[in-house]
Amino acid sequence: MSHKKSLNPARVGCPMAKRTFVVVGHKVSTAPDFTLDDLAGSTGRLDILLRAIHSALLISHGVRRDSEIYLVLRGPPDPPITLRVDGEKVRYLNPDERSTGALVRQALIKARKLGSETGSEWMESTPGFFVSRKGLGDVLDLFEKRDLIYLHEKGEDIRGVDLSGEEVYLLSDHVDFTPEEENLIEKKGARRISLGPVNLHTHHAIILVHNELDRRGV
Amino acid sequence: MSHKKSLNPARVGCPMAKRTFVVVGHKVSTAPDFTLDDLAGSTGRLDILLRAIHSALLISHGVRRDSEIYLVLRGPPDPPITLRVDGEKVRYLNPDERSTGALVRQALIKARKLGSETGSEWMESTPGFFVSRKGLGDVLDLFEKRDLIYLHEKGEDIRGVDLSGEEVYLLSDHVDFTPEEENLIEKKGARRISLGPVNLHTHHAIILVHNELDRRGV
Repeated sequence: MSHKKSLNPARVGCPMAKRTFVVVGHKVSTAPDFTLDDLAGSTGRLDILLRAIHSALLISHGVRRDSEIYLVLRGPPDPPITLRVDGEKVRYLNPDERSTGALVRQALIKARKLGSETGSEWMESTPGFFVSRKGLGDVLDLFEKRDLIYLHEKGEDIRGVDLSGEEVYLLSDHVDFTPEEENLIEKKGARRISLGPVNLHTHHAIILVHNELDRRGV
Repeated sequence: MSHKKSLNPARVGCPMAKRTFVVVGHKVSTAPDFTLDDLAGSTGRLDILLRAIHSALLISHGVRRDSEIYLVLRGPPDPPITLRVDGEKVRYLNPDERSTGALVRQALIKARKLGSETGSEWMESTPGFFVSRKGLGDVLDLFEKRDLIYLHEKGEDIRGVDLSGEEVYLLSDHVDFTPEEENLIEKKGARRISLGPVNLHTHHAIILVHNELDRRGV
């Protein structure tokens, strides 16, 4: 729960949940042995998740302190690993892919010290970057008391939906959720919400959610 | 003018202007002697413009063929240089900064073959990438018959504004337009339009414009 001053005047001083995004990277490497010179090619598309971090947490000349993002990595050799980046605590976050790729690599080095049990605790690798052995199911279990929103082209239009600002938004990377993931999401009662008529990149979808919430002051 | 099939069913077969974005990079290098390993540090923030290209032209698994972006480079050693990236013609455009940085570098190498006169012709460097010695004034002169929109935090809310889909959107990079640029923009009769209550990165603003136009089918 965040008690910090929010960017949004309507949220100042309100103890409420952070704006939360969960993104699954289906093939993203769970080992730190990739090169920063080829983030799109050598990492199972970590580049997509790096841009998602930026969309979730960066605004012009600042950080969204009231937001957080979970990245569920499902690629080889050692899935699942989940990173959490907390806007309230993050430091050294710049808007270029390479420097954020280096922070993720440090988190994956730290992950080697975690046991093999899923659902385990979080370890902080650099300020605001946390790593654990959680998978998607474990992550969704963290949000038992919050509404889940599955961003989906065939959902209801977000502009017509009541939002409290405490929802958790679920997104996939460049490939769709698997049937197993979709079952898990449906079983948790997630509501399908659409952002518009054109299928967008993951990090672009996050921008549209933020804008809708910014406008509503929630 | 684009006669190609648009992404948007409402625009199919309609000969109309492309969706056009103009972004000024105030300190972006006008020489190709930078390294792809440090696009944020060594280029005068070319990284911002690379992300703007991606926002203007890329959607999930495709290119916005009905869109184009002009990048006015004003950094040393040899300003101004303007790049135009045309969604209808572009090839080899991937969503990572490094590969698009390489395309811009090729355009700047090509620019060395241009004379020193501003307002000169365009040369194509790679498919869909064009380079010229135009400055902001020359670029705005191209749009005499179209409405200009200056995206500005104190403008009217875009959601309440009539849009034909033929407007030209003007944006700056991480620094504001200079007073001279602002005068030029005002003199051309640009209308100030706001996207929401929070100041966003340039490439995030472009996403919001696209979404608004996608929703309206213009």
